[in-house]
Amino acid sequence: MAATEFQVRTKKKIARIDVTKQVEKAARELGAKSGALLVSVPHTTAAVTVGETWDEDVVTDVERALAAWVPDVRFDHGEGNSPAHFLSEAIGISCVVPLEEGKPLLGRWQGIVLIELDGPRERTVRVHAIAAG
Amino acid sequence: MAATEFQVRTKKKIARIDVTKQVEKAARELGAKSGALLVSVPHTTAAVTVGETWDEDVVTDVERALAAWVPDVRFDHGEGNSPAHFLSEAIGISCVVPLEEGKPLLGRWQGIVLIELDGPRERTVRVHAIAAG
Amino acid sequence: MAATEFQVRTKKKIARIDVTKQVEKAARELGAKSGALLVSVPHTTAAVTVGETWDEDVVTDVERALAAWVPDVRFDHGEGNSPAHFLSEAIGISCVVPLEEGKPLLGRWQGIVLIELDGPRERTVRVHAIAAG
Repeated sequence: MAATEFQVRTKKKIARIDVTKQVEKAARELGAKSGALLVSVPHTTAAVTVGETWDEDVVTDVERALAAWVPDVRFDHGEGNSPAHFLSEAIGISCVVPLEEGKPLLGRWQGIVLIELDGPRERTVRVHAIAAG
Repeated sequence: MAATEFQVRTKKKIARIDVTKQVEKAARELGAKSGALLVSVPHTTAAVTVGETWDEDVVTDVERALAAWVPDVRFDHGEGNSPAHFLSEAIGISCVVPLEEGKPLLGRWQGIVLIELDGPRERTVRVHAIAAG
Repeated sequence: MAATEFQVRTKKKIARIDVTKQVEKAARELGAKSGALLVSVPHTTAAVTVGETWDEDVVTDVERALAAWVPDVRFDHGEGNSPAHFLSEAIGISCVVPLEEGKPLLGRWQGIVLIELDGPRERTVRVHAIAAG
């Protein structure tokens, strides 16, 4: 198998959620041993990245910074969630992490995080295995 | 073939341009069926990402936000386009999207966008096929 | 071999460091000829991206902009480096660049840059080879 996915229910407007364990489980399902993992969301108001996942204070610090980061300009989009669209494409809807011995190779303090920017919603996270060169 | 490219003529200083159809055409030319697509630009004042490409208002909302996003600091670079260099490397000059059945696997509202930050210019977008693991 | 790494000693709190030559050397060590390179750091207060590496003024311009870019919100994280965590995950701890004829395929003005956000420190940069599709 080359791809799998899992669901995450978010509970706030802006939420930074550690999904490392779900991605590790996905990697086991995929069965790939080396190369890389492409972790992505099919959404336009969420993002995926890698960050510090040991201190809960970092979670709320990042959430506060995200909420304050969007410039104060006119937004015309009728749904009112242009700030979420903007941050989603600025941060990125995917990340690529090395895969070694069947596990994402992360630093000691690193985890893979889903960033909800327009919640609460049900989100899908996709994991694709990429071959080593 | 493992790589191809196409050109885009941008028409404004800051422009967010949907290039999904060109990337899909590139994927057909490459002939790869699964894995991922690496979409990149060889430029330092443009970026590539994935965003909402259904509502034209999101385009102009994002363009306005990008123009206002750069901090008001001293810039010494003689060409005067340091804000464009800054946003290019913050957003990123490439994105990686899953490839399934020969097509980029995107969410319902997602499209691949070229972000011009110092136009108008002629831009090159490169598409490389990456193997499934 | 599919992966290698190198060390960089950073000298300032915020520093944007050209590591293109080290990545090119890593690519030679890996021996892969085509596909892509995944360049990443195992850190949560640094980032990797691609930017203009010809004019020294761009280096200091980007460093100044990074320092001013973090919103002025309350940060609770005890170590006091939440701004570094925030920028690291917003910019991204990895980049993927095309690999052709054994070298990273970069534009004329592009280089691969390590962004130190909480230095000075000793940093590790990892380089993984990814297969062409």
